[in-house]
Amino acid sequence: MKSSPSSSGISRRVIVSTLAVLPALSMPLLTVPVRAQSAAQSDGLSSWNDGATKQAITEFVARVTQPGGPDFVPPAERIATFDNDGTLWIEHPMYVQLAFALDRVKALAPMHPEWKEAQPFKAVLEGDMKALGAAGEHGMAELVMATHAGMTTEEFQKIVTEWLATARHPRFKRPYTELSYQPMIELLAYLRANGFKTFITSGGGVEFMRPWTERVYGVPPEQVVGSSIKTKFQMRDGRPELFRLPEVNFIDDGPGKPVGINEFIGRRPIAAFGNSDGDLEMLQWTTMSGGVRLGLIVHHTDAEREYAYDRNTSFGRLDKALDAAPLNHWLVVDMKNDWKRIFAFE
Amino acid sequence: MKSSPSSSGISRRVIVSTLAVLPALSMPLLTVPVRAQSAAQSDGLSSWNDGATKQAITEFVARVTQPGGPDFVPPAERIATFDNDGTLWIEHPMYVQLAFALDRVKALAPMHPEWKEAQPFKAVLEGDMKALGAAGEHGMAELVMATHAGMTTEEFQKIVTEWLATARHPRFKRPYTELSYQPMIELLAYLRANGFKTFITSGGGVEFMRPWTERVYGVPPEQVVGSSIKTKFQMRDGRPELFRLPEVNFIDDGPGKPVGINEFIGRRPIAAFGNSDGDLEMLQWTTMSGGVRLGLIVHHTDAEREYAYDRNTSFGRLDKALDAAPLNHWLVVDMKNDWKRIFAFE
Repeated sequence: MKSSPSSSGISRRVIVSTLAVLPALSMPLLTVPVRAQSAAQSDGLSSWNDGATKQAITEFVARVTQPGGPDFVPPAERIATFDNDGTLWIEHPMYVQLAFALDRVKALAPMHPEWKEAQPFKAVLEGDMKALGAAGEHGMAELVMATHAGMTTEEFQKIVTEWLATARHPRFKRPYTELSYQPMIELLAYLRANGFKTFITSGGGVEFMRPWTERVYGVPPEQVVGSSIKTKFQMRDGRPELFRLPEVNFIDDGPGKPVGINEFIGRRPIAAFGNSDGDLEMLQWTTMSGGVRLGLIVHHTDAEREYAYDRNTSFGRLDKALDAAPLNHWLVVDMKNDWKRIFAFE
Repeated sequence: MKSSPSSSGISRRVIVSTLAVLPALSMPLLTVPVRAQSAAQSDGLSSWNDGATKQAITEFVARVTQPGGPDFVPPAERIATFDNDGTLWIEHPMYVQLAFALDRVKALAPMHPEWKEAQPFKAVLEGDMKALGAAGEHGMAELVMATHAGMTTEEFQKIVTEWLATARHPRFKRPYTELSYQPMIELLAYLRANGFKTFITSGGGVEFMRPWTERVYGVPPEQVVGSSIKTKFQMRDGRPELFRLPEVNFIDDGPGKPVGINEFIGRRPIAAFGNSDGDLEMLQWTTMSGGVRLGLIVHHTDAEREYAYDRNTSFGRLDKALDAAPLNHWLVVDMKNDWKRIFAFE
């Protein structure tokens, strides 16, 4: 919440600083906390530990939904945007979509004997993660195009769906869709129950997410924004199809996130949720706009139940955004202490 | 409707051909027409004359919404896409957005003395429509960039809103937003009342439409797909903004419409509404997909109350799509005979 300190603050401080930052807010000194507290008891956020973070979330929601209140936001404008990798589901030891791409290279290898000698494919087939890393961004782009393009949108959707049904996370030995964060799923539902429209705004591929986001997160395909490659409309055997081309269309990451939000949603969010520097500009765009806003960063602090990482990591690096959080009054979720459980199966 | 003839068909033929095309449909020979008829009496389509076109629309809706019926479509998949220019509002004597661009050139001319001698600006300032036409697509692109780029998204929204409040159509002397088609507004509402999610998919600029589509059509910004220029995220004086660049991002027309539908909506529509060849591929993509589908073309046949045009026109040319309509069982709305009134003020 723009007007609240980070998760290290105690309840009292949240309330006081809220009032200090917002002089317009005169009346609800007693009302808001009471409302928030009573709401918190039936908010469905049962996987969140009680504490400053949870309270700041429910206070924000109470304020923007209070009819006639100074911070009331009409339901149509209650747009909330969520990053996906590391915010809604697991991103270690590697982005799930990268695991998909590597598996696809292995599946397609028999049709590409030349891959045995050509990087970055050779590295994938030999499981040489060091050589793969050395292939850099150019190598990653080659992997993505070789595995994500060259088929119709319907065919790709089928490939993704089948892969997700069988692939397992190397540590948890479970389908990736079970490695979504239960507290965040509860938060999505809680916001929707309070009139919010929830969107995913992810650096991941939009067509990699759309086949399952409704089932897992309750977010329908038309509310998923992500990176994409170009497609081409064509008729084949008298039937129309969209063919996926090996050409980048849009990268929904970093400064691309506000661009994508404007292009695909056309409204400025009042709440944004991320976990890495790729979400920095989305958090800025959302919270630096005048009204009461909620910015939240999921900080991976639990090596035991999940992973602990921030400034030094290949996937989901959180550095600049972590520094920016206290200055902008973004909440920082301490996974270890703020979340009662991380996964639904715990 | 995919399984119905064009608007020239009579009710009986609609039913018979429907059954001929869909052998899976065995039972509802009597049920469907009865349901449709009773629905038509309270459908809110009061600006539509009774007849084959209206009946085919209500029959389609009755079929896809009948729980347990063979053609039932779950609400989440009831996506309907509408072109804007010539389908939802007037596009003669020129696209409204072009009228906007010409007015902007005049408003900005004092800051651009060089425009007095440089085409296509000279033509605009002198009202020389012939010279303007001769400037071709390249000239149009220059006009668009000079009037649509070089400001923030917020500034552009303000410019559009102010222009629409004061601009008047040359023939009807009314704000353009009053020159939206009442029967189509009723159709949008009718579909929404039946669980459809209505989208605009227009060749027009998405940021030219979003400021007013909710008020005029009941379609919120996040359900508007259109053409766009690129934007850039930047901080200015410590505040984030999106700056509009003079570079095309996406053209949502012709084969771009299915591409845009897939990219922005991520679901295949079950009903599509257009009026020109720019809608051909959207109609193909929507209706050639296996199930019961509705494709509809608004045919401008009323020179007295609006305009009459199809194959020979600069704006909203309807040629290939008109030929394709009977082959694909798309409905063709005869504005003169199918619409009781065209505008709300009639």
